[in-house]
Amino acid sequence: MEGHTTAINNAMVITMEPGQPILEQGSILVEGDCIADVRAGSDFSAAPHRDIIDGTNLLVMPGLVNCHTHLPMSLFRGLADDLPLDVWLQEHMFPAEAAQMTPAVAEKWAFHSCGELLLSGTTCCCDGYFYEDHVARGVERSGIRAVLGQGVMDFPAPGVPDPGENIAVAEKFIDKWKDKNPRIHPSVFCHSPYTCCADTLKKAKEMATSQAVLFQIHVAETRNEMALVLSSQGGRASSVVQYLDGLDILDDRTLMVHCVWLDKEDIGIVKARKSSVVHCPESNMKLASGISPVLSFMAAGMDVGLGTDGSASNNNLDLFSEMDMAAKLQKTALDDPCALKAKSVVEMATLGGARALGLDRHIGSLVVGKKADLIAIDLRSPHLVPMYDPFSALVYNARGSDVIHVMVDGVFRIKDRVWGD
Amino acid sequence: MEGHTTAINNAMVITMEPGQPILEQGSILVEGDCIADVRAGSDFSAAPHRDIIDGTNLLVMPGLVNCHTHLPMSLFRGLADDLPLDVWLQEHMFPAEAAQMTPAVAEKWAFHSCGELLLSGTTCCCDGYFYEDHVARGVERSGIRAVLGQGVMDFPAPGVPDPGENIAVAEKFIDKWKDKNPRIHPSVFCHSPYTCCADTLKKAKEMATSQAVLFQIHVAETRNEMALVLSSQGGRASSVVQYLDGLDILDDRTLMVHCVWLDKEDIGIVKARKSSVVHCPESNMKLASGISPVLSFMAAGMDVGLGTDGSASNNNLDLFSEMDMAAKLQKTALDDPCALKAKSVVEMATLGGARALGLDRHIGSLVVGKKADLIAIDLRSPHLVPMYDPFSALVYNARGSDVIHVMVDGVFRIKDRVWGD
Repeated sequence: MEGHTTAINNAMVITMEPGQPILEQGSILVEGDCIADVRAGSDFSAAPHRDIIDGTNLLVMPGLVNCHTHLPMSLFRGLADDLPLDVWLQEHMFPAEAAQMTPAVAEKWAFHSCGELLLSGTTCCCDGYFYEDHVARGVERSGIRAVLGQGVMDFPAPGVPDPGENIAVAEKFIDKWKDKNPRIHPSVFCHSPYTCCADTLKKAKEMATSQAVLFQIHVAETRNEMALVLSSQGGRASSVVQYLDGLDILDDRTLMVHCVWLDKEDIGIVKARKSSVVHCPESNMKLASGISPVLSFMAAGMDVGLGTDGSASNNNLDLFSEMDMAAKLQKTALDDPCALKAKSVVEMATLGGARALGLDRHIGSLVVGKKADLIAIDLRSPHLVPMYDPFSALVYNARGSDVIHVMVDGVFRIKDRVWGD
Repeated sequence: MEGHTTAINNAMVITMEPGQPILEQGSILVEGDCIADVRAGSDFSAAPHRDIIDGTNLLVMPGLVNCHTHLPMSLFRGLADDLPLDVWLQEHMFPAEAAQMTPAVAEKWAFHSCGELLLSGTTCCCDGYFYEDHVARGVERSGIRAVLGQGVMDFPAPGVPDPGENIAVAEKFIDKWKDKNPRIHPSVFCHSPYTCCADTLKKAKEMATSQAVLFQIHVAETRNEMALVLSSQGGRASSVVQYLDGLDILDDRTLMVHCVWLDKEDIGIVKARKSSVVHCPESNMKLASGISPVLSFMAAGMDVGLGTDGSASNNNLDLFSEMDMAAKLQKTALDDPCALKAKSVVEMATLGGARALGLDRHIGSLVVGKKADLIAIDLRSPHLVPMYDPFSALVYNARGSDVIHVMVDGVFRIKDRVWGD
């Protein structure tokens, strides 16, 4: 593919680069795995080794970034719904995982989930699960970009029967996948402060730091998590965030998932430590975990990404419906229809997510030199007509199924809505 | 088409008829405009004048019933978002309507909306707008079934420059469309208690009663509606529902849309009067109007339907995303993940809606003798696999775009996802 280029001509282009206007008619040139040019009011001419895509009736934008998934859990999608989180997790998910999850199953369903993600316009996800080496194989084969974290917790888990080995298994995964595939970024996924003791949390974070990888953790998802954590640990912290901060867990390579139950003081700590937050509104709503104060996070200048969570608690991986839900939920929670405007939500699902994962030098906006991770949306369906404001359309009326082409790392993984290797 | 029949063989069939189980493998026979047979474990053989559809990998269920739309307003979809209801209505919608809405425009965009509805699995809608005679022409041409209400309010409106004529125009519409087309049910749409005075409300209801048609009205959508109504009317009622009840507006042919701000006493009144309620969660969330206590309505045994509202305040007409939102919103509002289970939401979007519109003798479930209004969902997409619980899948992971075939009144209006006359 030496010298191969792809041009998308005469599309509506939303680069998501701060300060750049929407190009009502724009064109993009991709060379190899990178964006080589983005232009308004002009198109790229035919050239040797160049594919040309007619962008008429297409909206081209950065691929969406889903900051929280548990890819193999699509196997358990819809297995046990309309239940409280603890019952769902302890009585249904953990037993189902123990009974059914094998390396081959993890790889199969991770691959399946990647197909769902790509088909609905996500080009990068951040995953945390077990058998992550096999998850990585499914991800590698699918063509998606991903941050992948091997799970760490103080209970026997799929592939880690001895919790004493959890950090060693995670480090082995990182060693194997570091610099192996430019689309795969290994990471550590410490399940939560209520499934990992203080010692595990500290050691896992130290390992992540020494490996210079992202440290993912579920934080303050439910109201009773704090009581659970603080009573079991006997610490003097008055919140989960304070507890984690006391363990030196929080820094600019920490990704805090959910963050539903944070108060002002907690927000100040997270901001000072430069940790990032992932908002998962559909999962939080479905499990009645509460409403995350994302607008306070954004007002504090924190990096906030959007995530679907696993498809066992959502029950899909479609970031378009997640954007819609995020916008409407904040308006409802704050009794303010002006809250969390459409453009902010699209930022959260693209560049915001890239920042949260520490990948914004490479992805999240369409600018020269960044990776060619982009999606094209077919604007001809009745529900997308008319279009006065593209951001509004993306959040309030577009669906994942409106995505017609998906490119990751310069390669089309979805073409005309078909997923093929 | 004398003697023409259609058989759908070997599909998963959800009849939505109370007490009937899901048919993992079932077949349906349609004769003319009606359902002639529904069977488990068997299929219908070839016969003269019979089309046979292979139902493998399809889920067949009643077409969805969208109990609240403003069809021509798709023209204003996304025109003014992230704004308070009063600003949105007074400063954007009313001026846009005054400037742009004509009979031809109303018909064009009503037709457009019907396409969107059909493509996402809705076979019957309940609409309220102006130029409803032209809306009816668009509806007639589209093939959808609809209850259509000519708008009544005490301000100049599209097609009704003199508010003094509002009820006469509405009655003329009813006279014209009564018994004209079996798919079209004329009705009265009194905009709201804050845009219609007591005298208008009473007279419009009397006219609706004398014509034996449904009386639609927006009720208690926002918190400040009550203050607005009660101060302007100077009445002694302490709620909007009490005020309307005092005017004898509420009976079993009254459809109360939104009902966000109802208290226990109001619910008792509505229940006693046998009026129906329409829940529009996405519109209520987007405009930050509040959260309707639908579970209290259902516990009281009221008929509750689901509606999208117009696509200017949603911004789509997809009842699948509305189902998802309805379920997740109640769980969040009540802090209870067990609240509003998936099956109840599907009921609300099918038979519940049919009951709310007074059409449950004809539509809402797949039983012999009812109209053949049904949809087929393609179960092969990654986001619908696996499927442990079909109700859960319909609410939490299906999208309108998963609907592959749509039949209304025995005629396929969508075939293989294509809308054609």
